[in-house]
Amino acid sequence: MNRTTIKLADGRQLIYYDAEPGKDRSAVDRRVLPPVSTSSEVRYDPLLDSWTIVASHRQNRIYLPSAQDCPFCPTRDGHLTEIPADDYDVVVLENRFPSLFGDQVLDHGAGPAGGSEWRQPGSGRCEVVCFTSKHDASFSSLSPGRAALVLEAWTQRSAELSELPAVEQVFCFENRGAEIGVTQTHPHGQIYAYPFVTPRTHRMIASATSYRDRTGRNLFDDRLAREQHGERVVASSPSWTAFVPFAARWPYEVHLYPNRPAPDLLALDDEARSEFADLYLDLLGRFDRLFDRPAPYISAWHQAPTRTGRELFACHLELFTIRRTDDKLKYLAGSESAMEAFANDIAPEAAAQRLRELAS
Amino acid sequence: MNRTTIKLADGRQLIYYDAEPGKDRSAVDRRVLPPVSTSSEVRYDPLLDSWTIVASHRQNRIYLPSAQDCPFCPTRDGHLTEIPADDYDVVVLENRFPSLFGDQVLDHGAGPAGGSEWRQPGSGRCEVVCFTSKHDASFSSLSPGRAALVLEAWTQRSAELSELPAVEQVFCFENRGAEIGVTQTHPHGQIYAYPFVTPRTHRMIASATSYRDRTGRNLFDDRLAREQHGERVVASSPSWTAFVPFAARWPYEVHLYPNRPAPDLLALDDEARSEFADLYLDLLGRFDRLFDRPAPYISAWHQAPTRTGRELFACHLELFTIRRTDDKLKYLAGSESAMEAFANDIAPEAAAQRLRELAS
Repeated sequence: MNRTTIKLADGRQLIYYDAEPGKDRSAVDRRVLPPVSTSSEVRYDPLLDSWTIVASHRQNRIYLPSAQDCPFCPTRDGHLTEIPADDYDVVVLENRFPSLFGDQVLDHGAGPAGGSEWRQPGSGRCEVVCFTSKHDASFSSLSPGRAALVLEAWTQRSAELSELPAVEQVFCFENRGAEIGVTQTHPHGQIYAYPFVTPRTHRMIASATSYRDRTGRNLFDDRLAREQHGERVVASSPSWTAFVPFAARWPYEVHLYPNRPAPDLLALDDEARSEFADLYLDLLGRFDRLFDRPAPYISAWHQAPTRTGRELFACHLELFTIRRTDDKLKYLAGSESAMEAFANDIAPEAAAQRLRELAS
Repeated sequence: MNRTTIKLADGRQLIYYDAEPGKDRSAVDRRVLPPVSTSSEVRYDPLLDSWTIVASHRQNRIYLPSAQDCPFCPTRDGHLTEIPADDYDVVVLENRFPSLFGDQVLDHGAGPAGGSEWRQPGSGRCEVVCFTSKHDASFSSLSPGRAALVLEAWTQRSAELSELPAVEQVFCFENRGAEIGVTQTHPHGQIYAYPFVTPRTHRMIASATSYRDRTGRNLFDDRLAREQHGERVVASSPSWTAFVPFAARWPYEVHLYPNRPAPDLLALDDEARSEFADLYLDLLGRFDRLFDRPAPYISAWHQAPTRTGRELFACHLELFTIRRTDDKLKYLAGSESAMEAFANDIAPEAAAQRLRELAS
């Protein structure tokens, strides 16, 4: 893997990840861009014990540009894009409209502030990961070699962003499909480097802590052991198990765990690393075949926070779709959005069975 | 208020709430209906310390019927609906496709079960509240008298459902708008009587408990006192305050609190009860005027659980829309759906300002 870092016209960082050495990465960003301006802050909600990102400068960002205006296509024929080169393998760049930006370490204060207002700068970093230069491709159409290169990029960026003092958790993810609000159709994912531990991860670590205190055992290990050979397994390799979890919230939801636990992507062993691409592409192919058109999905890498809970947490990927049938979506209405009580209309065992049948 | 309870053809309960006495409520449901069949269960997720409702029998329920087939219009001209009478004020009936059904009390066991699978029947109750017989109306178009009658129905049903041994929390809510998946356009809301305390409420009570232990004070009281006279107040009456919370997650989000705290609807005092309708209709009117068409919204009554945390919890309503602008929705993509880290593109103070300007 070969890596070249450049600066865009407004000072943002862009990194080319190339499978082969010797690519010319000297192209310069010839656009005139204003500096990135943000007014993000994070605000503490004492009732939910969590932070909300308030990023009011983002309200006017660009939506669904046509292919001709795609900012993630290579620069060609005078069309100047985010990527100065005329072709690329994988590119990671800082988001031009970041909801998290800056280096100030979050002051967690003395605990929940109750009646008082508690706000901090929305520090951290938002990056875009372009998986291919081909505008009409999808992750599922990538070669295993390309998918492995993306895993390399996720791993390196996670490790590097984790070293920033302001960053407490790194989240690599892909949103795919207009149904979940994707604003750019060019195949890409994102990386959020948060200045706080996200509520979901915080809760998982609290559960694992309580479980260890009660049983002396690791909750993630025990759960994986239970799912690993059961009726909800969708696919596996020697180093990985993909299963629909027992209490799945989404119509089709697959959790992909390395069989040898690791807190984050950097800690994956070589076998897991080399087997990932084939298995993940296989899963995405099944999601493509679930309905009359490729399913919209969210693919989310859960990694341990950078400084807390690392010995308890198990890195894994959660892949799920909000589509229930060819013509029905799962909406997060009152029960889910207001009470966080999820109702799933598809039994996890039936979802696993259907996904198993969709092997290519 | 006058109340008449009948049974539908399949044994489900239906209650007429009439503003005036003397209405003939003797009409019989002449349909032939199969018994309500459910296979709901709730499954424990040890990592998130929460229950998921698995209601796989609901996958084929009816979507978006035309006005002619509306099940919530009165029975007229041979069109047999869920409501046998030829007109009504407010009706509450058991949902024909409930995700929660039955009387078995949930066994909470000895705590999180970790690796083991832990499932229970999906006990509880799901009800529909029809706000008016007029198919094309909306809650915001109701008279104050009718809105007060709906409050009466919510209050009575909450009190009665709370007495069922299987029920741990009662949730009255309205989903409005196709954008959030509403399947019936007839103006109606729902009541879920859960066999567990919902994750959101559980978290709020945990926060309030921790705050009381640390400060000796009530978190809800202190938060309301702080918001009550600030720049995020949208509207108020002697007994109520409506404000955009400091750490709002949604583009336009209003919390409506009685100034005198009460754990649930039944505990509201007479002043709050009599002032509610005008203020709530005012808020809904503002939501109708936010965009070029009435905003989709979720309106959610947060009440204390039936048996726990009652002394700490403050009943309130949370009203929010997923619409950000005339042509943009707030989607729950990766950060929100996978990490529960919300990014809000509209500053709460700006949202409050705009809502204040939209007074009728």
